[in-house]
Amino acid sequence: MEQIQVMKLKKPDRNEAANIAVLGAGGLGMAAAKILGQKKEMRLAAIADKTGYIIDHNGIDPELLENKKPGDIGIRTDDAITCIVENCREFDGIFLALPNLTNNFIPEVVSMFAKAGFKGVMVDAMKRSQAVEMIFGMDDMIKNASITYITGAGATPGLLTCAAAIAANSFMEVTNVDINFGVGVSNWESYRATIREDIAHLEGFNLEKAANMTCAQIKNELDKRRGILQLYNMEHADDVLLERAGIVSREKVTVSGVVDTRNPRKPVSTTMTLTGKTFDGAFSSHRFILGDETTMAANVVGPALGWMKAGFELHKRGIYGVFGSAELMPRFVK
Amino acid sequence: MEQIQVMKLKKPDRNEAANIAVLGAGGLGMAAAKILGQKKEMRLAAIADKTGYIIDHNGIDPELLENKKPGDIGIRTDDAITCIVENCREFDGIFLALPNLTNNFIPEVVSMFAKAGFKGVMVDAMKRSQAVEMIFGMDDMIKNASITYITGAGATPGLLTCAAAIAANSFMEVTNVDINFGVGVSNWESYRATIREDIAHLEGFNLEKAANMTCAQIKNELDKRRGILQLYNMEHADDVLLERAGIVSREKVTVSGVVDTRNPRKPVSTTMTLTGKTFDGAFSSHRFILGDETTMAANVVGPALGWMKAGFELHKRGIYGVFGSAELMPRFVK
Repeated sequence: MEQIQVMKLKKPDRNEAANIAVLGAGGLGMAAAKILGQKKEMRLAAIADKTGYIIDHNGIDPELLENKKPGDIGIRTDDAITCIVENCREFDGIFLALPNLTNNFIPEVVSMFAKAGFKGVMVDAMKRSQAVEMIFGMDDMIKNASITYITGAGATPGLLTCAAAIAANSFMEVTNVDINFGVGVSNWESYRATIREDIAHLEGFNLEKAANMTCAQIKNELDKRRGILQLYNMEHADDVLLERAGIVSREKVTVSGVVDTRNPRKPVSTTMTLTGKTFDGAFSSHRFILGDETTMAANVVGPALGWMKAGFELHKRGIYGVFGSAELMPRFVK
Repeated sequence: MEQIQVMKLKKPDRNEAANIAVLGAGGLGMAAAKILGQKKEMRLAAIADKTGYIIDHNGIDPELLENKKPGDIGIRTDDAITCIVENCREFDGIFLALPNLTNNFIPEVVSMFAKAGFKGVMVDAMKRSQAVEMIFGMDDMIKNASITYITGAGATPGLLTCAAAIAANSFMEVTNVDINFGVGVSNWESYRATIREDIAHLEGFNLEKAANMTCAQIKNELDKRRGILQLYNMEHADDVLLERAGIVSREKVTVSGVVDTRNPRKPVSTTMTLTGKTFDGAFSSHRFILGDETTMAANVVGPALGWMKAGFELHKRGIYGVFGSAELMPRFVK
């Protein structure tokens, strides 16, 4: 089994797909495996979670992961991330598909990659403002390591933040940005970590309390609410990202949402509304509305890989450091 | 008066505004003057049209242009562009606010700037696919001249094309992009060139025929249609730009619009609809809808200046050549 770890992968040339390692094999990580399986410019070269990891430089068939975890089909270990870090020079890009861990976790992982000599592109789909700010605080270290890093590169923050950043250009002054998302999942157990994070944001809960709840307690909480979670004033990094891009101060950005944990149909259409004042004195709002049939996974992972591609373009030009998803265009991956 | 032409302007340092020259003083050029008058990072250093030009490196007060043309307040000449080209080293950015001239005109002007040693950023708000393709054809020349050029950087193409390019990332395959714009102007005479261009796209008309119409003939044509122009399958460069960005082939991109020439209220909300297929097999559409109160000028000039800023960022890093508005994020100008 050790052979897999030490195997040297060729760095891709122009005609070869980029090797992507995905950290996390929950809803997002598994979607990334499926999406990468359909792409020519990138391929899934590794996936890891708490069960273990699998590395294959020829690309991992996403069907192998159907109803399986990385540890089931690869190497079972409770320290899979260290194994990926040890092999990091074999990868061109790392997708951190771990939106809901503690704030310190991702910066620690990034440090590990930088120290191990990873020189490529990293993209995260983190949600919290504080976590994204921690990454921005690592800009010098990331730059010195020759890593190009795009943070907040999911849907919110991510796709919707980027849409807001574009929309802003019609206005002299942005007065507020309001993001209201709808999520519908037929079975909350496929998105345990995300639902747990959502519960943490309900009144009377916090991250610690939610983290310590048993599955039965979560089920009970969902039952009390008939499966519907109404979320207000969420700590989403759209605020930090838009502020850093010079568009609007963070307190003018709000994120709210409605999650239906029993129905794949979205309870509301996910909408970004940016309101501002034009040069000729009019107040008006541009809107970006996601199609109801698109899942959270499609709207997070597609853009994340788009930012990965944008990161490769910068990296090739020797441009390193941390970029926010409101500063950079995700580039459609073929 | 010659003094103005030979005056050497200081190149901006980080704390100084960039000097922008605007070519064209119709609806877009005049809006650019007003918008630049409210910006800190850029200022209007020159504006030119067929009446003449004015150059002032301390910034031109847009109020001077109220109901006036450049020739009225500066130097009257029928070759103003040559004069701007001769002074081109004094400018950091050139905004080509001339969307409706013949296809050859802008490429000729770009050649003039390149030959005269302009080394800065150029942005155009051209509309036609053929014109944008001509600019892409000049990539080598523009790169060799150390110019960073962003083409199709208005609203459509521009803002809406860029929104489509972002939206695409949720999908594995984009099946079509449909842009439908609404424009309302209280008085068509403020946007003569644009309305003339629109008439050229009506059934039974073409560019030559429209160019040769008298104002009375245009007024008569508008009267017959009660001031409303219904436009289908317009030759807008959104198609070329999205194809070049690798998102969708050009025949799957359509642009249509409704122009009310007697009412500033938009007859329909300007909407970009991108339809695609997700990795999990769903067909769905993302939409980007512009606020009805935002004018064409706000939605063209704001983004154009945003791409100008993005161009400055690339130029500073030594990245030259032609970029389309579907490849690059416009950066909000303070």
